[in-house]
Amino acid sequence: MKNIGILGSTGSVGSQSLNVIDNHKDKFDVKFLAANTDVNSLINQAEKFKPEFICIYDKSKYKQLKDKVNATKVLSGHEGLMELCELSNIDIILNSIIGYNGLEPTLKIIESGTDIALSNKESIVQAGHLVMNLAKLRNVNIFPVDSEHSAIWQCLVGEKKSKIKKIILTASGGPFRNFPKDKFSKISVNQALNHPNWKMGKKITIDSATMMNKGFEMIEAFWLFGINPKNIEIVVHPQSIIHSMVEFVDGSIKAQLSNPDMRMPIQYAFSYPNRYELNDLEFDIKKFSKLDIEPLNMNKFKCVELSFDAINKGGSYPVILNVANDIAVNLFLNEKILFTQIPKIIEECMRHHSYVNSPTLSDILSMTKWTENYLKEKFKL
Amino acid sequence: MKNIGILGSTGSVGSQSLNVIDNHKDKFDVKFLAANTDVNSLINQAEKFKPEFICIYDKSKYKQLKDKVNATKVLSGHEGLMELCELSNIDIILNSIIGYNGLEPTLKIIESGTDIALSNKESIVQAGHLVMNLAKLRNVNIFPVDSEHSAIWQCLVGEKKSKIKKIILTASGGPFRNFPKDKFSKISVNQALNHPNWKMGKKITIDSATMMNKGFEMIEAFWLFGINPKNIEIVVHPQSIIHSMVEFVDGSIKAQLSNPDMRMPIQYAFSYPNRYELNDLEFDIKKFSKLDIEPLNMNKFKCVELSFDAINKGGSYPVILNVANDIAVNLFLNEKILFTQIPKIIEECMRHHSYVNSPTLSDILSMTKWTENYLKEKFKL
Repeated sequence: MKNIGILGSTGSVGSQSLNVIDNHKDKFDVKFLAANTDVNSLINQAEKFKPEFICIYDKSKYKQLKDKVNATKVLSGHEGLMELCELSNIDIILNSIIGYNGLEPTLKIIESGTDIALSNKESIVQAGHLVMNLAKLRNVNIFPVDSEHSAIWQCLVGEKKSKIKKIILTASGGPFRNFPKDKFSKISVNQALNHPNWKMGKKITIDSATMMNKGFEMIEAFWLFGINPKNIEIVVHPQSIIHSMVEFVDGSIKAQLSNPDMRMPIQYAFSYPNRYELNDLEFDIKKFSKLDIEPLNMNKFKCVELSFDAINKGGSYPVILNVANDIAVNLFLNEKILFTQIPKIIEECMRHHSYVNSPTLSDILSMTKWTENYLKEKFKL
Repeated sequence: MKNIGILGSTGSVGSQSLNVIDNHKDKFDVKFLAANTDVNSLINQAEKFKPEFICIYDKSKYKQLKDKVNATKVLSGHEGLMELCELSNIDIILNSIIGYNGLEPTLKIIESGTDIALSNKESIVQAGHLVMNLAKLRNVNIFPVDSEHSAIWQCLVGEKKSKIKKIILTASGGPFRNFPKDKFSKISVNQALNHPNWKMGKKITIDSATMMNKGFEMIEAFWLFGINPKNIEIVVHPQSIIHSMVEFVDGSIKAQLSNPDMRMPIQYAFSYPNRYELNDLEFDIKKFSKLDIEPLNMNKFKCVELSFDAINKGGSYPVILNVANDIAVNLFLNEKILFTQIPKIIEECMRHHSYVNSPTLSDILSMTKWTENYLKEKFKL
């Protein structure tokens, strides 16, 4: 029996992780659940899974939660979240918090010596050096919960990292793969939220539309697997069946495939090194009939180019890339900026920030503040 | 340094294996070479690789060989071949003998306790029970040298066999994938020898055209990986880039891909558990741009249906399947029968033979004789 804690339990990945756990009650037990603001969903989840602790980040909802849920310790706010990250006797904590707020919990979990199933890729994008060093020091496993990194991880089982020639990261290309570049400025929020293959949260769906998501994944792959970005090739695979590939020195390429369903990588992160049944997910010759691979047009998807630029320059560049993107995506979702302004804002923040070579957590937090203020001023927020 | 012996060195797989060895002289050393009849190629190979032993199966060519090659022990005939199989201090023997004559050497190599790189799939098709039991008894590894089984093997590295849900065996579909069934009787030898993707020997090229090759591979997969034939799905993948896939219980599918080049699986069989460079083989987005998967039409390719029938009935059926196919392919290559007669002949031999439950080597040899005589009489050979 593995004891599991979930940060971000009411989000897309969080609720799918509960589905995974529900299908394997004999193998997984929910020890805590934490949500940002969705108190009603959290109450329902708590009733069903009976965790020892629940936490609502939004303190204004603490009383509502406390009144409804018995026999469970109720926490709230940042302190509550941090208390959960420090609990002992938890085997794996899934961090599926959205955006750059996921970093502090990630570091706290690792510091506490608990293995982490990491869906919050922003933790690694902005602070890969801190996260990976600390994980090494505390002998903590970071299990990726991202279809692409799970694919790479699965392809590397039993293989030597030193024999990797290249990582081939697949991208669906999002809703604008065949959309003309000169009409990008006209893209509406609804168009951008309409992902062809994956049902995901809003933030990551926009990141898929700009393909910033793929840039982040390239940075994540660099940190998780120690692969030089020049050996990471991003290709477009519109069907989202091949979740990524690893090429070895002998020209052999391993790929991991499945229907696009996040329960697969979530369950693998929980079950590793084992595999458990996931019955309604299987090879279907109709869905697998066409597997196309196309080159990526970085000129059209500037965010990918910015990501390579950020990781090559290193230091604080990826921090700004990540934070500026978070804010820009929110601005776009609130219809304050155009789709094409997302990369422009990020580029501008990267150009204007004060470079730090190896940012500490406090550097990252103050750079986050700087970016927030810089953009607040610029857009009169 | 691994000491390697090669049976069938002048054939397609044999000569490609020498290319692999030539590229890694610091890792592999040729201890012996054996050929069937092509004495001139054998002389050239011996001059280049300076093995300790060479053997020509065709005794009439012994003198010619002996006169040309110095400083190497020269053997011939069946006894010579068997002597090589029993040599000690050989790390791996590649058995790339063609057809059912490969079985006795396979058993002798295993009996001698030497690991075997097995390209002669007929050994397993007709005597899987003998080969696998003996290998277990003698603690000998059987490394597949077949792109499909190498793919499955690679996909299984680090995974548990008990977690396999299905093996998805890919087939190019051969030259007659889109050829109308009602014109199969008109297929000429040249048409059948014109494989779209692979450059291979004649026997296996015809087996690819009838798709018997895929039936054999299904049987081979059953023996090598212990997978029930009902969990082996054959699919058509015209580009021959995905060499096979393994589906696990959690719906995750691993695939192995590469350009169709036999040096990859040959080298892996030699290098396992390591991987060495194979420089001119790499991911090429142009070649990998379209990966199609189609269902197999067993009604059109009767040999596949016969293979499932043979392995399900078990015992001596696969022996007859294999031997009758060997002879039928030769008859077709010599323009004695039509393409459509190949499965008919096999089916007839299977129906008329005297069933044996668990055939011994001597049973297999006498069944081989029976099949030869039966068909000799039938076709007045």
